Amino acid sequence: MRISELSERSGVSIATLKYYLREGLLHPGTIEGATRASYDETHLERVRLVRTLADVGRLPLERVREVVDALDSPPPTRHELLGVAQDALRPAGAPGHCASSALDTPASRRVVALGAPDCGLSPASQQLATALEAAEAAGWVVTDEQLATWFTAMWAVARTDVAPELADMPPADAMRHVVLGTVLTDPVLLALRRVAQVAVSAERLEGVAEPRQSLR
Amino acid sequence: MRISELSERSGVSIATLKYYLREGLLHPGTIEGATRASYDETHLERVRLVRTLADVGRLPLERVREVVDALDSPPPTRHELLGVAQDALRPAGAPGHCASSALDTPASRRVVALGAPDCGLSPASQQLATALEAAEAAGWVVTDEQLATWFTAMWAVARTDVAPELADMPPADAMRHVVLGTVLTDPVLLALRRVAQVAVSAERLEGVAEPRQSLR
Repeated sequence: MRISELSERSGVSIATLKYYLREGLLHPGTIEGATRASYDETHLERVRLVRTLADVGRLPLERVREVVDALDSPPPTRHELLGVAQDALRPAGAPGHCASSALDTPASRRVVALGAPDCGLSPASQQLATALEAAEAAGWVVTDEQLATWFTAMWAVARTDVAPELADMPPADAMRHVVLGTVLTDPVLLALRRVAQVAVSAERLEGVAEPRQSLR
Repeated sequence: MRISELSERSGVSIATLKYYLREGLLHPGTIEGATRASYDETHLERVRLVRTLADVGRLPLERVREVVDALDSPPPTRHELLGVAQDALRPAGAPGHCASSALDTPASRRVVALGAPDCGLSPASQQLATALEAAEAAGWVVTDEQLATWFTAMWAVARTDVAPELADMPPADAMRHVVLGTVLTDPVLLALRRVAQVAVSAERLEGVAEPRQSLR
């Protein structure tokens, strides 16, 4: 198909498609003359993946490129491939990889102590160390007991995130699954935390009377 | 103390203190003449609470006011008092209260089915229904099984959030605890989810080889 048809079928403007081609987010079409190139279903599928990751997954385009590059030159295992998708979710500005020496801080030692594999190097682990440091800098210390309880809880969540079916999906579908499944449901988890807080508070504090006067 | 000393000790400018007084975030001082008022430790404590909720807890000032108003006219129980603090964490623009009839949507029925007390009315429950709807609108359906697993996981988290000690704290400290403990540790939970995903992926997908060629 011509680029005009690719634009029509994908709902993406020709100008944007040309931008994707220049930026390497979309592989070149087959050259059919000095000013003509033709595109096929692989191009349509790739454009849809890029739009989904950018629009729904809210990934910046340089992160979309990391996902796309990994699809074009896949690492040896599905675990590593999905790791690229997950790494693309790291906070803005965070490095994709990091020497373990850079992680020798009190917070990073707590993360390593959780005992997850590859724990010292992944962007996820760095994100956790950064979050612990930020809370502490603001005066809030997460205790070791809390951290262990929360990790167990999030492990149960992760077992539903990284479903066994991910082993058998086409690579692009599996990567889209990881990105969207995390981005779109983070707000669900945080809301569930609040609903559960209300429930625990009702259980523990419903009978605790408040003085009718402020204590100030 | 004079307003200048209150400013000095709290680190908040006189202009801002006057703004708090006008807005009712800070109770009036004792009038000592046409242009003089005096302030005491209760004022200093209140200014510090307002600053902490706004700067560290990132609450907009109208939400800080809800917390402060509840401290000044406390509801009958500690459960309800902390509910005001938690309600102040709802997303921007969300209503603080809502008729149960407004909640009769497929997503809200799923929330009610979770069985948490007061579930149909709390801003937390509304936030959850909204998050489920937003994920679904973007093409991602959280299954009933996932939702149940996640709720159990977040219940374990909430049991560490709503600690029994909250029953005995001074009201302002308890409210600060709820706001900061949630806002500052939400990023820790989301990072733990990612670390756990890496761990589960290593367990389940490390042995799954990726084809050396992209499948496109």
